[in-house]
Amino acid sequence: MAKISVGILGATGMVGQTLVQLLGKHPWFEVTELAASDKSAGRTYEEVMASRWNISSEIPEYAKDIKVKECLPKLDCDIALSALDSGVAQAVEEDFAKAGYAVSSNAKNHRMDADVPLLIPEINADHADLIKEQQRHRGWKGFIVTDPNCSTIHMCIALKPLYDNFGLEKVMVTTMQALSGGGYPGVPSMDIVDNVIPFINDEEDKVETEPLKIFGRFSKTRIDPADFGVSAQCNRVAVKQGHTECVSVKLSRKADIEDVLAAFKEFRPNGKLKLPSSPEHPIVYLKNDNRPQPKLDVNLENGMASVVGRLRACGVLDYKFVVLGHNLIRGAAGAAILNAELLKVKGYIG
Amino acid sequence: MAKISVGILGATGMVGQTLVQLLGKHPWFEVTELAASDKSAGRTYEEVMASRWNISSEIPEYAKDIKVKECLPKLDCDIALSALDSGVAQAVEEDFAKAGYAVSSNAKNHRMDADVPLLIPEINADHADLIKEQQRHRGWKGFIVTDPNCSTIHMCIALKPLYDNFGLEKVMVTTMQALSGGGYPGVPSMDIVDNVIPFINDEEDKVETEPLKIFGRFSKTRIDPADFGVSAQCNRVAVKQGHTECVSVKLSRKADIEDVLAAFKEFRPNGKLKLPSSPEHPIVYLKNDNRPQPKLDVNLENGMASVVGRLRACGVLDYKFVVLGHNLIRGAAGAAILNAELLKVKGYIG
Amino acid sequence: MAKISVGILGATGMVGQTLVQLLGKHPWFEVTELAASDKSAGRTYEEVMASRWNISSEIPEYAKDIKVKECLPKLDCDIALSALDSGVAQAVEEDFAKAGYAVSSNAKNHRMDADVPLLIPEINADHADLIKEQQRHRGWKGFIVTDPNCSTIHMCIALKPLYDNFGLEKVMVTTMQALSGGGYPGVPSMDIVDNVIPFINDEEDKVETEPLKIFGRFSKTRIDPADFGVSAQCNRVAVKQGHTECVSVKLSRKADIEDVLAAFKEFRPNGKLKLPSSPEHPIVYLKNDNRPQPKLDVNLENGMASVVGRLRACGVLDYKFVVLGHNLIRGAAGAAILNAELLKVKGYIG
Amino acid sequence: MAKISVGILGATGMVGQTLVQLLGKHPWFEVTELAASDKSAGRTYEEVMASRWNISSEIPEYAKDIKVKECLPKLDCDIALSALDSGVAQAVEEDFAKAGYAVSSNAKNHRMDADVPLLIPEINADHADLIKEQQRHRGWKGFIVTDPNCSTIHMCIALKPLYDNFGLEKVMVTTMQALSGGGYPGVPSMDIVDNVIPFINDEEDKVETEPLKIFGRFSKTRIDPADFGVSAQCNRVAVKQGHTECVSVKLSRKADIEDVLAAFKEFRPNGKLKLPSSPEHPIVYLKNDNRPQPKLDVNLENGMASVVGRLRACGVLDYKFVVLGHNLIRGAAGAAILNAELLKVKGYIG
Repeated sequence: MAKISVGILGATGMVGQTLVQLLGKHPWFEVTELAASDKSAGRTYEEVMASRWNISSEIPEYAKDIKVKECLPKLDCDIALSALDSGVAQAVEEDFAKAGYAVSSNAKNHRMDADVPLLIPEINADHADLIKEQQRHRGWKGFIVTDPNCSTIHMCIALKPLYDNFGLEKVMVTTMQALSGGGYPGVPSMDIVDNVIPFINDEEDKVETEPLKIFGRFSKTRIDPADFGVSAQCNRVAVKQGHTECVSVKLSRKADIEDVLAAFKEFRPNGKLKLPSSPEHPIVYLKNDNRPQPKLDVNLENGMASVVGRLRACGVLDYKFVVLGHNLIRGAAGAAILNAELLKVKGYIG
Repeated sequence: MAKISVGILGATGMVGQTLVQLLGKHPWFEVTELAASDKSAGRTYEEVMASRWNISSEIPEYAKDIKVKECLPKLDCDIALSALDSGVAQAVEEDFAKAGYAVSSNAKNHRMDADVPLLIPEINADHADLIKEQQRHRGWKGFIVTDPNCSTIHMCIALKPLYDNFGLEKVMVTTMQALSGGGYPGVPSMDIVDNVIPFINDEEDKVETEPLKIFGRFSKTRIDPADFGVSAQCNRVAVKQGHTECVSVKLSRKADIEDVLAAFKEFRPNGKLKLPSSPEHPIVYLKNDNRPQPKLDVNLENGMASVVGRLRACGVLDYKFVVLGHNLIRGAAGAAILNAELLKVKGYIG
Repeated sequence: MAKISVGILGATGMVGQTLVQLLGKHPWFEVTELAASDKSAGRTYEEVMASRWNISSEIPEYAKDIKVKECLPKLDCDIALSALDSGVAQAVEEDFAKAGYAVSSNAKNHRMDADVPLLIPEINADHADLIKEQQRHRGWKGFIVTDPNCSTIHMCIALKPLYDNFGLEKVMVTTMQALSGGGYPGVPSMDIVDNVIPFINDEEDKVETEPLKIFGRFSKTRIDPADFGVSAQCNRVAVKQGHTECVSVKLSRKADIEDVLAAFKEFRPNGKLKLPSSPEHPIVYLKNDNRPQPKLDVNLENGMASVVGRLRACGVLDYKFVVLGHNLIRGAAGAAILNAELLKVKGYIG
Repeated sequence: MAKISVGILGATGMVGQTLVQLLGKHPWFEVTELAASDKSAGRTYEEVMASRWNISSEIPEYAKDIKVKECLPKLDCDIALSALDSGVAQAVEEDFAKAGYAVSSNAKNHRMDADVPLLIPEINADHADLIKEQQRHRGWKGFIVTDPNCSTIHMCIALKPLYDNFGLEKVMVTTMQALSGGGYPGVPSMDIVDNVIPFINDEEDKVETEPLKIFGRFSKTRIDPADFGVSAQCNRVAVKQGHTECVSVKLSRKADIEDVLAAFKEFRPNGKLKLPSSPEHPIVYLKNDNRPQPKLDVNLENGMASVVGRLRACGVLDYKFVVLGHNLIRGAAGAAILNAELLKVKGYIG
């Protein structure tokens, strides 16, 4: 079987690099195009990345000699994975969709559009069919699907078994987010060494609104949002990879702590929907008091796990716990790939 | 006027060092004794601290030649400021109180004893009079007063104007606590560089229970605890000084955000009770979105401020905000000194 | 006596901020003008710095309401202290000097010009008289003096007593330089948390060439460079303030270690030349094996000391030691102020 | 072929954990015994390590159920890999050797013993035959071989092609060493966050003396040390893994920089001696100015490379460069394993 050809938009940034790395040996996908700003275009990826490759392993061989192109809808690929900055993603992604490309985007721009799916396959794979409404409504041959904000993803995966088993009324979350979530160059070192910054521009709004769409109910042409309340406080800390989130929840139905714990441990979504990048355990529950920790746990399930720990009663809501996840893999590049895999299984590409 | 003589118990630890530093030029107090474990006893403070002084300024001249003694109630001083580890504080502090010393303690051991005041002068100066019941009940000539946990103190100071103006029903807090709060040697560097540890032993319990006593109602022989709910999640981050806390509150009475903001800004407790170490503004409110930050704000009011910022509506409770404070100064050593000053004003010492 | 009016060029950067802070209470100088790029011009310093002030103390009151101007030679001041980026310093400083201003610069651009003094008052105060040749040669009414690179300064101060007492043949230095030395935004946090970068653009060349001019011999119209050899390896580390330098030296004359130690400890330069910002001890020698350290020692002498420790024999050259200093104070802003003070004493301003 | 059975002494420390991890899938070796202090003995390795496993991947399955034993010479294994603290290594390793075990040690205790090989297979594989003299002289059935200090190893590997091609006269090195090199708990976080410590106890002596033995000439019963001079300055920095070393060398014979560069790049030691853990390229030379860096390069060749960069002329000696290496893998655990592999090839075990 011929592989599906993939173009990466924004291939030089942190998320773009991670896509390049993760797609080195994919069973279904083959990277045929790397696109970036016009400053980079025309040189090989290896040349462009000489002093910008920021991952602790070398540039994959396959990518080194690919000539970087501009982000124009003339790429030779079936699907575009977009790691574009929000400053340019809006127009570029629409141009690609209009021109007939499938776009699996990590950018925030289209996430909350009424006709664009905001997908986490373990939660709302059915939302993918909103694509039909999008194409009908916009008159596009191609289409756009999106993955959520990096903090949203891990929180929602942790919430999913609670939502399914007990219902959700309220969610409070305080995040401690990694530097790589801010892109590159991102946070100046003078601002964060020996410091915490209790603010990330625009982040709390994403964490508070995206979950309601993700857990919403799909009915052919639209998604009716879920109706629990979310309140977020987002902080930047001096950690390279891995967002840590302290979550408290009020459930709709009474639940014993053993049942909540079991819900985390027994979470096996999508019995039939096993995608190549699906983690075997989307939720890994760690029992030690002092876990999860970015340093020790961020790479569980190859960075595709949402790692939960410290479940205990909450004196204000019902239960509280900690969830940690890799912001660049499960929280961004891996999420876009997983969505692309879902598109293939659903017949939208390939 | 002769100064009141002070002995420091546990003078070699992080809090003890901070006491030594802060008491260098005190208008009322003079350090006459430095006490520590028997390993240190017999040498001068300068000798003992040669490779342990951990503050970015030199050992004060006055302290260098003081001969360190054991923590036995034979010290030549009127009041003992205790920075002892909880492992030894219980017995030592009781021995001093029995022997007639006033003890202002930073240790956790006696904080929740029914007859021991847990004092923050800006909040509950009247609780000091519980000393009489303590002496009556225990038959001691001396007595013990305590200051709260370092995270508790800053949170409670920030809550005080809300409590007074609008009443409090619920408080959720997630802390990001500094390394120096863990004492010395404390957290191994391998555990915290490029990491967050979502657990501090015993800490959440303190932050959840102490505020109810602090805001409790004093009636001659006892304190009836306040009855709002508190839920805490405590984390360690790679910051040297300054605990950052993300707080959400549900108020008893409806309040506009302008009124809550004004309550923070106009907080002037203890109109008449101006102690030498009292900060002019116990709460400093910063208006920039990305403040307070440990690096920039921990030393406001000489480390005696609780620095608040980011007040905004909370989608789950009523309002949320961030409070930051110096854990070793206002959160520990400065708190013990302030309590000692209160004792003098109230006539319990001097 | 009326104070000398000072304008700060590049007042918004790291060095500029430090100048603003240090000049708050100067006995001879009064800041009358703050200048920066045209983006900042027209607003008050407080407005401009709202989210850029990067020092752990508030903006001094005196500076808050000063209206920031462009860096044009129309400022109302006697002397311009330049903290400009090297990208613009060349032309701007020359424009000011042509227009009759005295310029004390921290920029690298003019340091190695044959007719521009490169001054460290404790070492080569006599070089200031090169100003006359500069004015004659360039036909300027004003003039430019410079201070050295931040690593060069501390190394040279440490070398001065060795040079005077024993002569110098060879110097090897490996630096571990603080983040603030890279300006703002400077080093991206992703690049330096949990990392060392063994390269700082252009830095080794400065550290290898500037000392020869500094220790050179002045003879009316020129400086004949000293002739020892210097080799530098410069690294960036995750430290906010303070460059640490491991130095090895080969002396011209044999010296016992006790004599070298005494030379450090007894270094009292410029018996008669006591400037307001002169540290009492330009070299502070610490005897503990594990000192100096940025965290503990960078603020000695208000950041104006070069802190030396660990003197011991070197198996390849003669002796080795460690020197640490504050890169923004003694290494930049404080150096420019000290040079301005020297200019006044020498009668070139005021 | 049956595998050689391995016991790990000191299996719970940082180096011990790394041995457990690296030996999970070894072609020749099988871990049959894990030994540690008597506090750990009697429980399974998983139980013992519950809150001490410090590596970002889970405990290998094979090790979890092994019952930890005391470090007594009654273990069921052919060879003991020792990661013991120097406080206990002396006696324990001798007891094992006396009892007939082969010991490949990472401890410093026996490194400089005249009859104990200090091995780096790429440099001095022939020294292994000193075992015969050791057994003869001490009357042991077993024997001890050692690997060098973690900083020494990487420096010596980088020096080897220079030594072979041009001879060595002098070596100056300044190290910036990772936290994991200090063991666990090791350096307190309060001491190193936002700091550099210019001192590591006993380290400089090791780096200055061990190379002379490693490059020494073996003649049946003894090793005549090499005679170049080494001077070291050792620093601790806030990096988790990877020692960075700035090296300057004086060669015995004149060499063009192209030849020195070629010597690094073409270094292929031990043409015939290909061990399972041998890196394909013991030296990896990186051409970018700002490399090598711990964050990006420490895992090259699975942590078994010595990564060199920044070769340039030195104004005091001849050439200078930077070498970086993984201190726990190539610098400790991997070195002990490589030496064990050498012992098998040489017929001393298996």
